[in-house]
Amino acid sequence: MDGNSFGKIFRLTTFGESHGKAIGGIIDGCPAGLEFDEAFLQKEMQRRKPGQSEITTQRLESDEVEFLSGVFEGKTLGTPIGFLIRNEDQRSSDYESIKHIYRPGHADAVWDRKFGFRDYRGGGRSSARETASRVVGGAVAKILLRTYGIRIHAYVSKVKHVELKTPFQDIDFSLTEKSLVRCPDPAISEKMIAVIESARNSGDSVGGTIDCVISGVEAGLGDPVFDKLDAMLAHAMLSINATRGFEMFRGFESSGLMGSENNLVNTGIVGGISDGHPIVFRTAFKPVSTISMAQQAMTNTGEEVTLEAKGRHDPCVLPRAVPIVEAMAAMVMADMVLRMRSDRV
Amino acid sequence: MDGNSFGKIFRLTTFGESHGKAIGGIIDGCPAGLEFDEAFLQKEMQRRKPGQSEITTQRLESDEVEFLSGVFEGKTLGTPIGFLIRNEDQRSSDYESIKHIYRPGHADAVWDRKFGFRDYRGGGRSSARETASRVVGGAVAKILLRTYGIRIHAYVSKVKHVELKTPFQDIDFSLTEKSLVRCPDPAISEKMIAVIESARNSGDSVGGTIDCVISGVEAGLGDPVFDKLDAMLAHAMLSINATRGFEMFRGFESSGLMGSENNLVNTGIVGGISDGHPIVFRTAFKPVSTISMAQQAMTNTGEEVTLEAKGRHDPCVLPRAVPIVEAMAAMVMADMVLRMRSDRV
Amino acid sequence: MDGNSFGKIFRLTTFGESHGKAIGGIIDGCPAGLEFDEAFLQKEMQRRKPGQSEITTQRLESDEVEFLSGVFEGKTLGTPIGFLIRNEDQRSSDYESIKHIYRPGHADAVWDRKFGFRDYRGGGRSSARETASRVVGGAVAKILLRTYGIRIHAYVSKVKHVELKTPFQDIDFSLTEKSLVRCPDPAISEKMIAVIESARNSGDSVGGTIDCVISGVEAGLGDPVFDKLDAMLAHAMLSINATRGFEMFRGFESSGLMGSENNLVNTGIVGGISDGHPIVFRTAFKPVSTISMAQQAMTNTGEEVTLEAKGRHDPCVLPRAVPIVEAMAAMVMADMVLRMRSDRV
Amino acid sequence: MDGNSFGKIFRLTTFGESHGKAIGGIIDGCPAGLEFDEAFLQKEMQRRKPGQSEITTQRLESDEVEFLSGVFEGKTLGTPIGFLIRNEDQRSSDYESIKHIYRPGHADAVWDRKFGFRDYRGGGRSSARETASRVVGGAVAKILLRTYGIRIHAYVSKVKHVELKTPFQDIDFSLTEKSLVRCPDPAISEKMIAVIESARNSGDSVGGTIDCVISGVEAGLGDPVFDKLDAMLAHAMLSINATRGFEMFRGFESSGLMGSENNLVNTGIVGGISDGHPIVFRTAFKPVSTISMAQQAMTNTGEEVTLEAKGRHDPCVLPRAVPIVEAMAAMVMADMVLRMRSDRV
Repeated sequence: MDGNSFGKIFRLTTFGESHGKAIGGIIDGCPAGLEFDEAFLQKEMQRRKPGQSEITTQRLESDEVEFLSGVFEGKTLGTPIGFLIRNEDQRSSDYESIKHIYRPGHADAVWDRKFGFRDYRGGGRSSARETASRVVGGAVAKILLRTYGIRIHAYVSKVKHVELKTPFQDIDFSLTEKSLVRCPDPAISEKMIAVIESARNSGDSVGGTIDCVISGVEAGLGDPVFDKLDAMLAHAMLSINATRGFEMFRGFESSGLMGSENNLVNTGIVGGISDGHPIVFRTAFKPVSTISMAQQAMTNTGEEVTLEAKGRHDPCVLPRAVPIVEAMAAMVMADMVLRMRSDRV
Repeated sequence: MDGNSFGKIFRLTTFGESHGKAIGGIIDGCPAGLEFDEAFLQKEMQRRKPGQSEITTQRLESDEVEFLSGVFEGKTLGTPIGFLIRNEDQRSSDYESIKHIYRPGHADAVWDRKFGFRDYRGGGRSSARETASRVVGGAVAKILLRTYGIRIHAYVSKVKHVELKTPFQDIDFSLTEKSLVRCPDPAISEKMIAVIESARNSGDSVGGTIDCVISGVEAGLGDPVFDKLDAMLAHAMLSINATRGFEMFRGFESSGLMGSENNLVNTGIVGGISDGHPIVFRTAFKPVSTISMAQQAMTNTGEEVTLEAKGRHDPCVLPRAVPIVEAMAAMVMADMVLRMRSDRV
Repeated sequence: MDGNSFGKIFRLTTFGESHGKAIGGIIDGCPAGLEFDEAFLQKEMQRRKPGQSEITTQRLESDEVEFLSGVFEGKTLGTPIGFLIRNEDQRSSDYESIKHIYRPGHADAVWDRKFGFRDYRGGGRSSARETASRVVGGAVAKILLRTYGIRIHAYVSKVKHVELKTPFQDIDFSLTEKSLVRCPDPAISEKMIAVIESARNSGDSVGGTIDCVISGVEAGLGDPVFDKLDAMLAHAMLSINATRGFEMFRGFESSGLMGSENNLVNTGIVGGISDGHPIVFRTAFKPVSTISMAQQAMTNTGEEVTLEAKGRHDPCVLPRAVPIVEAMAAMVMADMVLRMRSDRV
Repeated sequence: MDGNSFGKIFRLTTFGESHGKAIGGIIDGCPAGLEFDEAFLQKEMQRRKPGQSEITTQRLESDEVEFLSGVFEGKTLGTPIGFLIRNEDQRSSDYESIKHIYRPGHADAVWDRKFGFRDYRGGGRSSARETASRVVGGAVAKILLRTYGIRIHAYVSKVKHVELKTPFQDIDFSLTEKSLVRCPDPAISEKMIAVIESARNSGDSVGGTIDCVISGVEAGLGDPVFDKLDAMLAHAMLSINATRGFEMFRGFESSGLMGSENNLVNTGIVGGISDGHPIVFRTAFKPVSTISMAQQAMTNTGEEVTLEAKGRHDPCVLPRAVPIVEAMAAMVMADMVLRMRSDRV
């Protein structure tokens, strides 16, 4: 069934396979009168773009967004914002030779079993290229959130076992974009880059975690019992490719504390509702499945084959996932600030 | 705004404050012709019920469910199933003295800030009593899932630092219900109980983790890109009271593996779609906020007071949360099997 | 699939078969802080109640609503409002003899074909008894609409061929409730009653139309392109039992006008959005299907039988349908005023 | 708030202003494996296209649809189908002179009041150009419905007072497309054309009615109590520009029959559920608001002005509305056949 819409009032619907004509989407429910900061939007796109540094994939995608509707004389009209990103660098031939092969860790086999067939080129709809549309939705959401004073900062907190342990309160978020790996600590950043380069050199890949801090949030956001603010964030994060876990600040660790200790910890959300403090959460990413090393794989007829991936790919998705985490978080918050408008008579 | 419905086809909507007249709900979208196993339903309710053992709260709630519609001659009609659980043991007076006090770790203050006022008795809508309605929805979902051969088994995998390390494949799920703490290993179970009793004796509380294994799942469940199966499970889990984290099998740990290692791990969901293997996930619970020890608290006028909770409460919610985890997982799966019916022409 | 919820923010979900234990529902999304005028609510119920006059069915239903949640200290909490109406006067035996017979004009056969079986007693879920829950939802919606100055007045404008031709601007709505047939013109009212009594005496039934005027509406309500205000009203009206048509003021007649004439007519909605003028629409009701005369009917095995209905029924549903039309219109408007809160930054 | 999506499983979301860069949409929930008959799709577009005959507007719009995703090797993938129609013939300057004028009968003023400002060029989002996206959605729905044997035939049944009175059973639907006015009776068709030409010559416009017959429908479609099949059709029809009324076969007329007469009439839907017979309904269209005659209008500052429309427009929208009525009906039916898949265990 359909599953390509996110949000209840501020609502993004996306389309597109990685090697089809285009990807894109529609943002419905964005209020009228918002200054449409297109420069900011394109800048956000650059943050997710492949080929931005030596530690990311060298695919060249223009990732230029064409806005088709919903904006007039520089402001949102209150009508749906349609947008489009053409797929330009389609090296479909990279995939022709593996069209019958189910790549390990990838969704190839399950798409075949779900739908009977699939667009095998570059993962089709299951490709992370789809997340470019999320960054567009998130950028519009961020512009809306500015009017509420809400700011969202994500950063890489761990690559394999290299971890940034600085408390979030002490982090200078302006350093994040200065780091190739989007870790706001220059020294840790260097170590992370070394781990990533080592993985690439061995034809392998690594995962890690991204932390996200949402500040400037008024109290009252979130709709228990099912649409709690943390539940919506968890849904948003686990919908991103390659994510495997989510925790509110110290979530798993807090399960080892005494109640008397834990009651002193403030995490920005209580009972599913924001309390005015910064909201902090962490998302775990598995190492990316596409690796260059030879791997055993199955074909769609059950044969075992040896696969050596030829496509260009990231040895670590985390640097490019930072803007995606922010985008999804921004859409959750945008939806929630609009939902809150109906809380009281 | 509203947030009291869960699911898209198999859809539960709930109502009720802990000390109002009743709690209950409506299950819409349950297919017609399902044998309505009411004995099983009431048994599921017993598993969540307070006062079931010496390590849970001694509140007495009858938790008896009255079904009002949607069932005829022992089978579901395809019409909405309305149900009701009366609130009987309402010691509202326990709360009268603290009506102006915001209990630490509780949602009292944020509800006031969201809605302007609240039902302060026992947490009102934010009380975990609400989860009884989820167990009803989950029990009906489980009956539906039987027809698909899908089975769901949750168990307590950690209390504070006492952890069950047995791989899920080696666990005998029939032992779970024999343990007061719902841990299927008798020796670990004893240690967990000791930790809980120690917490209660000191007027404190402890948290932990619950693992859940879903087996018998056919491939193809889950609707990318936003309604991935793991995203729906994460949403479901984080909507449960006191949860702080969610991970697919080895989720956070996998972020420290190499891609070549991790590609060999099977977790039942790839790219948001089930692959036919057992689905395993873990949910983290914080220690329950209500404790008997004296704590500093704020009143609604900003005064600091010392609070000593008099209500009866659980020193550890995990044993009673096991059926709730299963119920939410069952509703996700029930929705998804119905959604999958529209995948192909 | 499920189809028992109405509204996007202000959302009613209902349950219940006519001869089951109870009917009822949940109103989710009603803002907090609304004075809950329960006396008004029960009065609205009286208007729909059977047995209220000699021209309606003589069934006795208490139609007393029990509110179970969502209200505290006389005000809405912002949490879901659960409610219940017990089915008391269940003369199920009236229906035992016809359990295998498909009553002409009724939905008996299609429910069997849709779901495989049905609750045959009194129409089960297809009974108009279900509309009592709508009146509850509508009454809460009306209380919310008061705060916006929006008023809703429906009245019977035609019974068979007896028509009230007074322009809506000249009608004294206070007369509606003084008429047994709910037509605000005493002389026309008498003629309508005569037609209804004549139908009853011959064991037959009659239909007609109900007009509805919504005034005090600010401009800007309605969400093109699909959720236009008139589209939502049409949906609402055609969801009521026995309705067969809907038109905005002079809708079918306007199809015979010239554009230059029609552009001068104001109807309260332009392009799907309210313009501040009164909104006027008309709903057509077929004559009620249950009649006392002998009719040819089919059984579920395809036999032809002669059927003489023994249940108590209305020879004309229109007087009791007036509050239902108002209730559905009120829920559309309540949803739309809340939706409008997100129109602008 | 957002209102640009239609359908629950088979779901169309649209975007686009008439003089922006493009209009288009996303169809989510279309099952995988459907043969994508693009020739049929483009043919459906031709039926709605302006400039197709001497009695329609002479605007030239290419109306060529570009499909961007969701289709691979000639079949639907089960992923969202994104599509685009560029706005080419943008004579925006036609509208520059009237940017401050609220055209009589148009939604100009209400859009300003709803959103604070609007794209004044050609009606912006309120333009009927938006319906081109509906025809795309409807064409895909029709292809899906073929696999169920469901056929949809609409035709013009009345222009002003010229009415086609042939019973629907006796109509040869193959004649509809041979008539400029899309009335399947050549003689009546001539009279209708004469009425339209007369209106155009006097700078005026005319309305009328469109009938629609859906055949090949199995019993069981429709989801009471709120998503009755006729309620969904009514919603769909009233969401089309310029519609003012909807009735099921003989709907308003049936309100003047006796129950004993009406029970013999079969209309394809009983109690909101299809019964296997053809479904017949009628939709009323007002005369189009844009006329060439001089009219009194208001500006956005409240001044009265005389307006003489210079844009090219249809003197009667009905011929071009026939495919739109079919498209909306097709989407309702497509959604309902998919919804029905979850009716039974």
